[in-house]
Amino acid sequence: MKQYINELQPGVKVNSVFALAKKQLIPFRDPSKGKFLSLVIADKTGQIEAKLWDGAEEIAAGLAEEDLIQVEGAVSEYRGSNQITIEKVSPAAAGKWQPEDFLPAGKDKQLLLDELRQLVASLNNEHLKTLLANWFSDKDFLQQYLTCPAAKKVHHACIGGLAEHSLEVCSYAVQVAKNYSKINRDVVLVGALLHDIGKIMEYRYQTSIAVTDSGKLFGHPVLGWDMIAERIGMQPDFPAPLADHLKHIILTHHGQLEWGAPVLPQTPEAMTVFYCDLLSGRIRQVFDIIQQDEDDELWTRYDRLISRAIYRGYKED
Amino acid sequence: MKQYINELQPGVKVNSVFALAKKQLIPFRDPSKGKFLSLVIADKTGQIEAKLWDGAEEIAAGLAEEDLIQVEGAVSEYRGSNQITIEKVSPAAAGKWQPEDFLPAGKDKQLLLDELRQLVASLNNEHLKTLLANWFSDKDFLQQYLTCPAAKKVHHACIGGLAEHSLEVCSYAVQVAKNYSKINRDVVLVGALLHDIGKIMEYRYQTSIAVTDSGKLFGHPVLGWDMIAERIGMQPDFPAPLADHLKHIILTHHGQLEWGAPVLPQTPEAMTVFYCDLLSGRIRQVFDIIQQDEDDELWTRYDRLISRAIYRGYKED
Amino acid sequence: MKQYINELQPGVKVNSVFALAKKQLIPFRDPSKGKFLSLVIADKTGQIEAKLWDGAEEIAAGLAEEDLIQVEGAVSEYRGSNQITIEKVSPAAAGKWQPEDFLPAGKDKQLLLDELRQLVASLNNEHLKTLLANWFSDKDFLQQYLTCPAAKKVHHACIGGLAEHSLEVCSYAVQVAKNYSKINRDVVLVGALLHDIGKIMEYRYQTSIAVTDSGKLFGHPVLGWDMIAERIGMQPDFPAPLADHLKHIILTHHGQLEWGAPVLPQTPEAMTVFYCDLLSGRIRQVFDIIQQDEDDELWTRYDRLISRAIYRGYKED
Amino acid sequence: MKQYINELQPGVKVNSVFALAKKQLIPFRDPSKGKFLSLVIADKTGQIEAKLWDGAEEIAAGLAEEDLIQVEGAVSEYRGSNQITIEKVSPAAAGKWQPEDFLPAGKDKQLLLDELRQLVASLNNEHLKTLLANWFSDKDFLQQYLTCPAAKKVHHACIGGLAEHSLEVCSYAVQVAKNYSKINRDVVLVGALLHDIGKIMEYRYQTSIAVTDSGKLFGHPVLGWDMIAERIGMQPDFPAPLADHLKHIILTHHGQLEWGAPVLPQTPEAMTVFYCDLLSGRIRQVFDIIQQDEDDELWTRYDRLISRAIYRGYKED
Amino acid sequence: MKQYINELQPGVKVNSVFALAKKQLIPFRDPSKGKFLSLVIADKTGQIEAKLWDGAEEIAAGLAEEDLIQVEGAVSEYRGSNQITIEKVSPAAAGKWQPEDFLPAGKDKQLLLDELRQLVASLNNEHLKTLLANWFSDKDFLQQYLTCPAAKKVHHACIGGLAEHSLEVCSYAVQVAKNYSKINRDVVLVGALLHDIGKIMEYRYQTSIAVTDSGKLFGHPVLGWDMIAERIGMQPDFPAPLADHLKHIILTHHGQLEWGAPVLPQTPEAMTVFYCDLLSGRIRQVFDIIQQDEDDELWTRYDRLISRAIYRGYKED
Amino acid sequence: MKQYINELQPGVKVNSVFALAKKQLIPFRDPSKGKFLSLVIADKTGQIEAKLWDGAEEIAAGLAEEDLIQVEGAVSEYRGSNQITIEKVSPAAAGKWQPEDFLPAGKDKQLLLDELRQLVASLNNEHLKTLLANWFSDKDFLQQYLTCPAAKKVHHACIGGLAEHSLEVCSYAVQVAKNYSKINRDVVLVGALLHDIGKIMEYRYQTSIAVTDSGKLFGHPVLGWDMIAERIGMQPDFPAPLADHLKHIILTHHGQLEWGAPVLPQTPEAMTVFYCDLLSGRIRQVFDIIQQDEDDELWTRYDRLISRAIYRGYKED
Repeated sequence: MKQYINELQPGVKVNSVFALAKKQLIPFRDPSKGKFLSLVIADKTGQIEAKLWDGAEEIAAGLAEEDLIQVEGAVSEYRGSNQITIEKVSPAAAGKWQPEDFLPAGKDKQLLLDELRQLVASLNNEHLKTLLANWFSDKDFLQQYLTCPAAKKVHHACIGGLAEHSLEVCSYAVQVAKNYSKINRDVVLVGALLHDIGKIMEYRYQTSIAVTDSGKLFGHPVLGWDMIAERIGMQPDFPAPLADHLKHIILTHHGQLEWGAPVLPQTPEAMTVFYCDLLSGRIRQVFDIIQQDEDDELWTRYDRLISRAIYRGYKED
Repeated sequence: MKQYINELQPGVKVNSVFALAKKQLIPFRDPSKGKFLSLVIADKTGQIEAKLWDGAEEIAAGLAEEDLIQVEGAVSEYRGSNQITIEKVSPAAAGKWQPEDFLPAGKDKQLLLDELRQLVASLNNEHLKTLLANWFSDKDFLQQYLTCPAAKKVHHACIGGLAEHSLEVCSYAVQVAKNYSKINRDVVLVGALLHDIGKIMEYRYQTSIAVTDSGKLFGHPVLGWDMIAERIGMQPDFPAPLADHLKHIILTHHGQLEWGAPVLPQTPEAMTVFYCDLLSGRIRQVFDIIQQDEDDELWTRYDRLISRAIYRGYKED
Repeated sequence: MKQYINELQPGVKVNSVFALAKKQLIPFRDPSKGKFLSLVIADKTGQIEAKLWDGAEEIAAGLAEEDLIQVEGAVSEYRGSNQITIEKVSPAAAGKWQPEDFLPAGKDKQLLLDELRQLVASLNNEHLKTLLANWFSDKDFLQQYLTCPAAKKVHHACIGGLAEHSLEVCSYAVQVAKNYSKINRDVVLVGALLHDIGKIMEYRYQTSIAVTDSGKLFGHPVLGWDMIAERIGMQPDFPAPLADHLKHIILTHHGQLEWGAPVLPQTPEAMTVFYCDLLSGRIRQVFDIIQQDEDDELWTRYDRLISRAIYRGYKED
Repeated sequence: MKQYINELQPGVKVNSVFALAKKQLIPFRDPSKGKFLSLVIADKTGQIEAKLWDGAEEIAAGLAEEDLIQVEGAVSEYRGSNQITIEKVSPAAAGKWQPEDFLPAGKDKQLLLDELRQLVASLNNEHLKTLLANWFSDKDFLQQYLTCPAAKKVHHACIGGLAEHSLEVCSYAVQVAKNYSKINRDVVLVGALLHDIGKIMEYRYQTSIAVTDSGKLFGHPVLGWDMIAERIGMQPDFPAPLADHLKHIILTHHGQLEWGAPVLPQTPEAMTVFYCDLLSGRIRQVFDIIQQDEDDELWTRYDRLISRAIYRGYKED
Repeated sequence: MKQYINELQPGVKVNSVFALAKKQLIPFRDPSKGKFLSLVIADKTGQIEAKLWDGAEEIAAGLAEEDLIQVEGAVSEYRGSNQITIEKVSPAAAGKWQPEDFLPAGKDKQLLLDELRQLVASLNNEHLKTLLANWFSDKDFLQQYLTCPAAKKVHHACIGGLAEHSLEVCSYAVQVAKNYSKINRDVVLVGALLHDIGKIMEYRYQTSIAVTDSGKLFGHPVLGWDMIAERIGMQPDFPAPLADHLKHIILTHHGQLEWGAPVLPQTPEAMTVFYCDLLSGRIRQVFDIIQQDEDDELWTRYDRLISRAIYRGYKED
Repeated sequence: MKQYINELQPGVKVNSVFALAKKQLIPFRDPSKGKFLSLVIADKTGQIEAKLWDGAEEIAAGLAEEDLIQVEGAVSEYRGSNQITIEKVSPAAAGKWQPEDFLPAGKDKQLLLDELRQLVASLNNEHLKTLLANWFSDKDFLQQYLTCPAAKKVHHACIGGLAEHSLEVCSYAVQVAKNYSKINRDVVLVGALLHDIGKIMEYRYQTSIAVTDSGKLFGHPVLGWDMIAERIGMQPDFPAPLADHLKHIILTHHGQLEWGAPVLPQTPEAMTVFYCDLLSGRIRQVFDIIQQDEDDELWTRYDRLISRAIYRGYKED
């Protein structure tokens, strides 16, 4: 069974899977003794240092940062912090761990799937229905859609964050469509559902959420634009203007040039996805700040990203 | 019956009520002849020049810009434009006109009232229920709430625009409350409903939408903050922190300092009202641009305020 | 007599009043021993840690952060810093301390009062004279006006800072009025005198300068606007346009939207108060930087807020 | 032979090809007479109005804006301007016109081709050599590359502008590669050569330079990214990291988010293409302003885009 | 005696000096008749067109824009405007005009001189006293200092504007020195007095205010820096650090990089000059807007430069 | 022989010249023992602490920060870091050290000189040739030109950096001149060569690169403007407009007001120098970041100044 880092106490024996966050070979003071291995290992509850004193160099060669590793050893205290003295360490065997051990869990996957199906079922446009039906019938893709986080940190940075966030954006877009009958409901909903689809290629998130090289070099709006273009390319009768509209929504959902939209959103549907995305992201961010703030005082700590502290304020009795 | 300006043709006799947009006494070339009166009169369909040649100075003294006036005369053509030669002009009698002749009509007032009542009925907090019940039971105030426009130009610049826009913001806030159970639903809804309440003091809108001196000198967020403080002052047991929270939402709903919020929104509810307000305003603005664009081409004209043209794009067959 | 923190040496006995800056109950390593009390206590000369080992939990319940407390104990050295081992601690009795022990003193109160009286005496407008005469005849208010600081840190962050700063702004406005005869001297002076009046509600400053909830949620321009509206409300014959003008000056004295003015200053008097306030604040800030810079070298340290170091430069022999 | 608009004089007979810039059917004052056709026709020397009085509606149906049309008629003067009274108008036959009649000519095509070949010949990387060899061996593509303009207005807005500008950017990149031996010369040169390749899809430029729908909805950096990805897809052994690097250069060549780069350039080569592109574009823009400024005075008129007038200044005797 | 343009009426004979604002030779419709001369001539009250029909080309050769010219002719009306039919035109003889005919007059020169002398007399630092005494004893320089305007348009754009504005800045700096005893009073006053001295080289202002080539290419802060350096160079014992300080004040008085200060002001004295300059310029600008606004309504027209209309507001009865 | 700091090991005897980076006299815990001397000494390989226990106060008086000092003593380890216990310390004798010990070396001086001579030889304008010939024939100046760094940190912060950077800017300007025949080649080249000449007065760089008071108070563009004006003043027949043009280039080479250009560049030559300077500076900066990044991983660390990490990416096999 998984042993969580925040529960380790001095004296405890450890035998569990952890993510290898940092690996260093450090020379002993007496250089003739060679090097020891200093690791930082992590799971979703925190980080801890771990040291391997013997045979470090050989063992180190078999471990890579971001790997999952099986660690055996014992916890002790050193200069006021806990650390593990490793007896044995090796790459973790499959089946010995699950993503939920390393990344915060989000909303229940079945709930997300139900919402997703309901939303797809509500569409009328045959081209768009086919697009989604085909795409989501690809099990791997569906799995990725339901597992990928929506961010490294700021908001929805958890397993399933992408789907949860996208469905939340859809929920606002549905309301916009109720208020504005002239909007193309199907286009805006599919746009909302897929706006962040490029994040599947932008993030690696087995044991921690990291940005891929493609993510850094191109960004998820362009990656998503490309993924959708490829899928649409498999539907020969997909109307070109509809394809352009959908791709435009994905490409421009950051809404402003300085936020990474290469061109401005230029349709009511693209602007709706932008403002609903903004609403979803910012509100979630605020609730994350409130939740992560340990004290339960009237004001949270000052948060740099949003340049303010949050007032918990009045509570109903 | 109202004669609309865009229907006046040379040769037609005019006898109808118009708004006095501009009034000028102009000397005849032969100064010994005194001055004639040159008016610009308006209704919601446009503007037209009107001239009064005889006895102008005395009559002019009885007319003020922004007044409604009863104009009798005849239409003729002059240098390629129509103009009215006035025979008789006087302040308009009450009952001879209605606001809808001068300002674009918005959503049906009864529909707005129904929505408003439904929303108020959905609240649970007794203090907030009492606040709204008392305030809206003031007939004059209710009338103002249902008649006031939400803007001079940009969006919801029509009779009833304030209520329509506020209820639209509520509709998004309701959805946020469904997604985030920790939000204080009653506070966010009352905040959304009242966020623009200061516009009742910011605008004059009998015959055209104009900004009052108070509106220019203080702005509607501060005016609204004050109106709500005054109403809350009538409820002696209204909890101070609840009052502060509600006032904070009203004061900060422009969301960013450079957009006129004197301080940043600092609660989830205040941020929700800001982002829902943004969503409502911007989407309505886009649809107004599309509607006002006379041609029905693929792209609207370039709009300066939003720095782009809008793509009408793909349409379902 | 007050014992100042920067004078405490290992071995000294302490029995004095301090401000309680931070209070924590920390479990002993051996949890069966319960918790000890770890305080940070402060006065205007600095901070020091203080520990109470016995009966901590009960005693802690009677102490709140920001309180003034009477501390008895002894100073020792621990890991290179001084700390106090507490023998006895309790809320401070009134009369045992004075604000000047905790906040830097500013200009002499009598001098401020004289300047204030002189300025009020120089007014001609009866409405404004009455407004000030009545308001300052309220002893509590006068005391607050003469005690409140003008800032948490940046400039005039001392007892009496508000009055000193306001009178300085007046001194520049008087000069503007000499240069521009068309300016309304009385309006601009009263505006200058009261522009920061909202800080009385924005700051708490018994033992340290802190921002109140009202201060954070509304900001002092809006709070001041409201205070003045309330006072003017007590003068039934106060001309409405004069009231509007004065309130406009208070509301807009930050001068630019991005600096927290909800609307721009729109009268010569409002713009004068803004630019004189800027002049006063910035010059004082520079002299504070120079004074707080310990070395007396040619250049002060780089100051982040003003993005520069200050050159002490040339000195008269 | 082409008759140029800036040479038409009252009394002249016209029979030549023009671009149809604007087409309007306008009712006669006497509506029973139906409508006449009012055109604005253009070539690279200017615009002129043209009227067709008889049978306008039927003829209008056969003409579309941006078409080339054969116009027969006579020039007369009307209210101080020249206009054409049309006798006959029809779509222009192929072979009766050439692009140079409508768009300003740029650098000689053969010179461009020679430079291009020289540059390609200077490459060493086999993958990149093959990429360019294959692509430019496509005659249509080569023709487009050598004909497409580089802008609608600002700089290199002429036939062949794309190639001229790209080769100029290459010339600076060559120099950077001489100064920095660590730069990947081949990558930076191919990046420079292809950085604006998406403009082939962004512009329509038969008779005037216009932006396509794709151009507006996606922008040329993304379109170019996609074109290159597609070409690379035809080379199965093209190394993925090389492909990523090249695509990154294309995507980010606007250099800053607010200028339309969806992500920042993150390699020395991508930054080199950005700064060389900037250098080329801005210097050309200045020389265009100088050339278009009709007077030959010391200072050109103030140019809004670059917020300054240009000083022609000192000239060698 | 000077005939002012705003007093010219049809039928009047003209024989007066005007500034030649614009000169054009225009071909007659019948090109065989050659060209006529179309002038725009100006004085401080406005502009008027003037035409010379005969012998225009020869006469035109003797006239240059910005020259003062003696115009003889008669006023007539043409298309609703007055214009002059010229009988004779030639360069104006010296003594026939004075600057005050062409540029708005500012404060009385003697008053300015008195204030200047008083200020110089109040200095204590011998080096600075000598600097000013020597410089102002140069009659030409003194004359320029007392005549030069302070701007082309925005504020103090009148004869003597430079001196008036500089003395106004001094008046605020004097007040700062009263409030802050640590300021170097002499340095800040001389800095204030000379901060805009470069405008003497930046402006040409015989008949209208124009910017010189040096003004455009270097700007008055750098020109002033250089002028002062040159004068100080004539005082061999002038202390270098004092010289640096003074030059720094002149160079940085625009206060922020984006306003044209090449480096930030880095002494209390330099910052004082900046903020006092800002105060003087902005308040004067507002009063100029109020004065130039023809109507005397509650609000002036919207002014683009300051992005607002000005409220004339409350007036004492 | 120079002992480098990064090679010192515990136990080693030291006797070498170092730069004195920081000097502090610190009281012993037992104040009766007086003070010891705590130094930070530096060379181009790093910094180390050094302590002198005996006779510190007298010795300290003879040492100034930024001096070069001869240090004798021994290295030991203290709390995990090396430090030197000083036996003897005194100002360094001339001839015992060379600049290259303290500042990173740049390009070979002879190479720079050759390039410089070649460039000067390529000029045609006699005035400019004379200017450069005379100036560079001043040995001291030539030495400074070839030794001065181009920056404190960001780019070309090494001995000879100024010349290397200036010649690099020239190399791009040469290419611009090849592309644009209308550019004044001689002016742009001399401008490029001298654009940063003011850095000779802006930096002190004997043992570390520091900014002089003049550098801080005026900045190198203004200092360079002045140096060139002075040199040109020695050539009586130097054409004034050519002088203005050259001075304008120097003054405006930062290109934008917010980057420290007091006015915008207003000639093609000034804009060319600006954009070529930008190109040179930014590309060098990126290669410096890559080089200073210790690991040789795919991505460098995030660099704050350019707000990105650099991708080392694809490498030719």
